[in-house]
Amino acid sequence: MTVGETGEFGLISSIIARLGTGPASLLGPGDDAAVVAAPDGRVVASTDVLVDGRHFRRDWSTAVDIGHRAAAANLADIAAMGAVPTALLVALCVPPDLEVKWTHQLADGLADECALVGATVVGGDISASPTLTIAVTALGSLHDAAPVTRSGARPGDLIAVAGRLGWAAAGYTILSRGFRSPRALVEAHRRPAPPYAAGPAAARLGATSMIDVSDGLLADLGHLADASKVSMEVRREAFTVPSSMTDAASALGVDAYDWVLTGGDDHALVATFPATTQLAKEWTVIGRVRDGEGVTVDGKPYEGAAGWDHFR
Amino acid sequence: MTVGETGEFGLISSIIARLGTGPASLLGPGDDAAVVAAPDGRVVASTDVLVDGRHFRRDWSTAVDIGHRAAAANLADIAAMGAVPTALLVALCVPPDLEVKWTHQLADGLADECALVGATVVGGDISASPTLTIAVTALGSLHDAAPVTRSGARPGDLIAVAGRLGWAAAGYTILSRGFRSPRALVEAHRRPAPPYAAGPAAARLGATSMIDVSDGLLADLGHLADASKVSMEVRREAFTVPSSMTDAASALGVDAYDWVLTGGDDHALVATFPATTQLAKEWTVIGRVRDGEGVTVDGKPYEGAAGWDHFR
Repeated sequence: MTVGETGEFGLISSIIARLGTGPASLLGPGDDAAVVAAPDGRVVASTDVLVDGRHFRRDWSTAVDIGHRAAAANLADIAAMGAVPTALLVALCVPPDLEVKWTHQLADGLADECALVGATVVGGDISASPTLTIAVTALGSLHDAAPVTRSGARPGDLIAVAGRLGWAAAGYTILSRGFRSPRALVEAHRRPAPPYAAGPAAARLGATSMIDVSDGLLADLGHLADASKVSMEVRREAFTVPSSMTDAASALGVDAYDWVLTGGDDHALVATFPATTQLAKEWTVIGRVRDGEGVTVDGKPYEGAAGWDHFR
Repeated sequence: MTVGETGEFGLISSIIARLGTGPASLLGPGDDAAVVAAPDGRVVASTDVLVDGRHFRRDWSTAVDIGHRAAAANLADIAAMGAVPTALLVALCVPPDLEVKWTHQLADGLADECALVGATVVGGDISASPTLTIAVTALGSLHDAAPVTRSGARPGDLIAVAGRLGWAAAGYTILSRGFRSPRALVEAHRRPAPPYAAGPAAARLGATSMIDVSDGLLADLGHLADASKVSMEVRREAFTVPSSMTDAASALGVDAYDWVLTGGDDHALVATFPATTQLAKEWTVIGRVRDGEGVTVDGKPYEGAAGWDHFR
């Protein structure tokens, strides 16, 4: 059964039936709009869009995987503000010959990733389109904390990262060369595992700036450096690169540090903290904030690949 | 200059520079997420997606028009809950050869339509795609009112409509036959004029159910009837059809009532009210809620065209 045969309203009903409800969902899908709790009088909101063939490939990832990834990319943006995600809205554009089952599996992936943080899919829209496109908006709650922006890093601050770096990029390279293993790296491309709870925890620890790594660590540190008008100094020795990654890199003839330093899509969180902060063990200190501008690795601009630009 | 030549980050900066700020925008575009005021501890949220060639045609509408329309479709959903729109997030997928100017004009249209209700564009995402796609999420505030859902209509209630019906559909038919006038109808297709303020006003008047007319009046009354488990009886004589529309209809050999009863995209608001409600003059009573199911026109199911299904 294709979505064209089911029609818009049948498709919407069958998708809504697969979505759960959560504590913040005061009025869920099925009306003109949803109503979501925003207990401290503010809501955090972010939008991220995934386009077939550009952000995902249907021959590399299942619909469930793509649902997880679309949700994760958005939920991580909420966490990167120091907030707890509460709800997702999903605009889905699908070719009429797409199987209904594919959309159901996508919904399952979205709902399951949301469930990891207690959020739910509260609304959406569906249209036919020649290009399969998934535009997701995530909402979240700061629970009385101040948002952790990109602009608060100060010279002397520690730079620390929580979550995986380079895994998704390694998985992408492996798949693009026609391989299917190491499985852990391929799976990391299919389903990122952002350290959601580290976001609000960083806010409580006094993080001065934070971003989720979606363009690549150095590119995203560059965003923090620009917004905070500081320089970011990273030390290569600070990173622990797993042997599965170094082995895969040498088999494929690439530099594993390119994956770690410039690979996006793991949605790690990178944040800056006052130098005296006692960080929990999920955080790894990778460098220092200094006066100046730009990002350096071991004192020099990085010579490897640049981050991702969707039009380049 | 094309968006491909400008690149993702240049494009984002130049668009952000065109957006204003508003009272509900506590943290605007440029970070991982925006922060929007939700003064009564709840946020209303809705998503609507527009696809090139399906929801708009670039040879029929300017980018400014399309921005207005994309915003209006979403802001009207917020109004249809009885809420006041506060913010918009926009996921934009564009072909790399699109002119940057087009995206700027789109942003201007979005921002200008938002300004009508005091809302602002607070965030978004941009990706390359072969299919120009605009996915918009609108947020809004109920200001301590209960949301007006689709499910509260009760037998005996009045059915009333605020805003235009059939104008956008007439404009669409006129354009699709290769004509460019009457101008007022063509402009209604390009830029709907939803009665935003009537939404919260209806909530204050005690509306029992409400929806914005995007699929067509009878289809959307059908959604109210289904959700409320009632029947909706509409009287044809209740509608005032402007002479420009009846003239255009006879010139084109169509029934003007098809436009009025089944045309979407004007984003009128249709609501039900207790029978004794004193309605303001922006509302026109068009029928009554009864026991039963479905929608009738002058006592019979409507024989004309059905509403819009995006996959049919």
